[in-house]
Amino acid sequence: MRTQLVSKSTGVLADGREIIYFDESPGLRRAEVQDTRDLPASAQGGPVVVTAEAGLRWDPLLGEWVVLAAQRQNRTFLPPTDLCPLCPSRPGRPTEIPAADYDVVVFENRFPSLRGAGVAGAEPAGAAAADVTAGWQLGAQRPAFGRCEVVCFTSDHDASFASLTPRRARTVVQAWADRSATLGAMPGIAQVYCFENRGEEIGVTLHHPHGQVYAFPFVTPRTARMLAQARAYQLGGRRNLFDDLVASELAAGTRVVARNEHWTAFVPAAARWPFEVMIFPAVRVASIPALGDPARTAFCDLYLDVLRRLDGMFGIRMPYIAAWHQAPVGDAFAQAEFGLHLQVMAVRRAPGKLKYQAGTESGMGVWIGDVTPEDAALRLREAG
Amino acid sequence: MRTQLVSKSTGVLADGREIIYFDESPGLRRAEVQDTRDLPASAQGGPVVVTAEAGLRWDPLLGEWVVLAAQRQNRTFLPPTDLCPLCPSRPGRPTEIPAADYDVVVFENRFPSLRGAGVAGAEPAGAAAADVTAGWQLGAQRPAFGRCEVVCFTSDHDASFASLTPRRARTVVQAWADRSATLGAMPGIAQVYCFENRGEEIGVTLHHPHGQVYAFPFVTPRTARMLAQARAYQLGGRRNLFDDLVASELAAGTRVVARNEHWTAFVPAAARWPFEVMIFPAVRVASIPALGDPARTAFCDLYLDVLRRLDGMFGIRMPYIAAWHQAPVGDAFAQAEFGLHLQVMAVRRAPGKLKYQAGTESGMGVWIGDVTPEDAALRLREAG
Repeated sequence: MRTQLVSKSTGVLADGREIIYFDESPGLRRAEVQDTRDLPASAQGGPVVVTAEAGLRWDPLLGEWVVLAAQRQNRTFLPPTDLCPLCPSRPGRPTEIPAADYDVVVFENRFPSLRGAGVAGAEPAGAAAADVTAGWQLGAQRPAFGRCEVVCFTSDHDASFASLTPRRARTVVQAWADRSATLGAMPGIAQVYCFENRGEEIGVTLHHPHGQVYAFPFVTPRTARMLAQARAYQLGGRRNLFDDLVASELAAGTRVVARNEHWTAFVPAAARWPFEVMIFPAVRVASIPALGDPARTAFCDLYLDVLRRLDGMFGIRMPYIAAWHQAPVGDAFAQAEFGLHLQVMAVRRAPGKLKYQAGTESGMGVWIGDVTPEDAALRLREAG
Repeated sequence: MRTQLVSKSTGVLADGREIIYFDESPGLRRAEVQDTRDLPASAQGGPVVVTAEAGLRWDPLLGEWVVLAAQRQNRTFLPPTDLCPLCPSRPGRPTEIPAADYDVVVFENRFPSLRGAGVAGAEPAGAAAADVTAGWQLGAQRPAFGRCEVVCFTSDHDASFASLTPRRARTVVQAWADRSATLGAMPGIAQVYCFENRGEEIGVTLHHPHGQVYAFPFVTPRTARMLAQARAYQLGGRRNLFDDLVASELAAGTRVVARNEHWTAFVPAAARWPFEVMIFPAVRVASIPALGDPARTAFCDLYLDVLRRLDGMFGIRMPYIAAWHQAPVGDAFAQAEFGLHLQVMAVRRAPGKLKYQAGTESGMGVWIGDVTPEDAALRLREAG
């Protein structure tokens, strides 16, 4: 890890939330920058408890926790540009970021779905990950313990991840690695999830280029399923599911979108989204922090290339969800066998047509694909 | 079952697809009505095979089949009202329904995601349900065998399910029961799914009031998960998960929306959608055909009441997915222990605000709820 790449400094916002600057130039004296706002103290302190509006609720029919975060219903919703809370502060117009400029900045979400991780005394009794997943009792509830952070990719309100320089993308990777390691080490955290929602079409409420980090107190349903599949695959006498999947995609070739020495981007054979791209490293690791520096740098080249192909597909910004799949932190099998990858789910299937999760998807969990994965890959290759 | 309620008659469309009329008055001589269109023969005949555009594809990471149906990409999309294919035919303007009027009509989808079930010679080798779910091979594909039908609830283009008379709703239930029994008995079918997508907000392409029926060649992921939960619940020394869930909701009372002698409608404690309503019968059955006549009639009263409450919530038509959860047909445990229920997923959380499945939902399978289930139930009770 070339730590000299990025200078990290930590501050505190007016309501007690943490803010972390990832600067490409050292010596910016971030500690001297004060948040001048008169904010009510955040609810970050004190033990996290179940309330009528916030908690984890057990769904006994599917065996999954659902996060109730009704206190977020009134969160900031598509504010006009001059009120963007993710832009740097200007004199007389303070935002969430007290500094007058920044490269990449991370701060605790003002409207968190999960909170308390890393806060002394906030961890609820019995919040250990293993305990939280054992919820057979009908109507079981747990505190919504965890942490939600916002990652601003650039101070330029009108930019996008796709328009970042490779250097800036590399700083974002550094921030993801830092947050994954830091939040993953907090007591009671089972899994760290870095992601980006992009586009009003999927409900994005702030246009400023940003992503999010969620630290969950349980292993998420999709990750649990992947781990169960990987276990069953090995028990069936096979090797590693992730390794074999990438090898089979490289052998087939028809769904590969782009690749370099360290990464392969392909449309999965069973894609659920019109343009879905999986990006796997050539050498399997379990998490972003485990990526070496050359792999981190090479990722930026490939990911920027993929995002620009997606934007170029219809000549309009492609709405997407970009999801980093990492191993749960406390699971030895997962740490040894899970394959880190980024999944980009682009939801536009044609100009003016979006993919919806309607009756078969939402009711049965059965996805109906409208675009062949091979055609999607071909079109993405040609969009380069 | 009061079969005298509905007169069923079957015909064939110009391209060979089946059409079934469910008439509230007998003697309408449906067999004499001809489809006068000059349609190319449908692809219903011959064995169903995997093609580049159509097939079931195995997702090894989640252990699920994904349906590829790329041939549907050019299906009818929000046609103007005077071209509605679900309205009755008029002289010089033939539609999918040759008759000049109808009560409830079902026909095979012209753009089916799954096809071939019930067609002699169409069933592919090895399409038995058990076989289809055993797909460990990376890149495994199967023919997209099954059946997709459209259910028109009324000939009135501007109506909605909520505006149907109880009598008409009862005829729809009769059609659902008939299709569930008929398609469920076809070789190679594992599960029958009746549902309605309502509202452009969730991607509905035809506004005429209608639902759909899918006959799947595999047990769907969500149903498989519910059955696994029900099994684990029993193995843990408890009784029936569905019975206990309904009993616990009745005991709690805070999430009950409406009930009558035969049915209870409640917002689940771990609701995923802003306004999600589960409707369970008082006496558990595994499928719609197993419902007695009093329960079918009482369902209509309660369901119409619930739908009108949903529409009344914000004074504008509520977009929703209504999903009938039935037991797989060939599973003895499911037939004995599954609890039939209707799940209504309404996606509007406030006027002008929809619930999106973004990063946490689509990436991790973790739902973040914005409305407390107790508040949703209270508001639905008050909307009556």
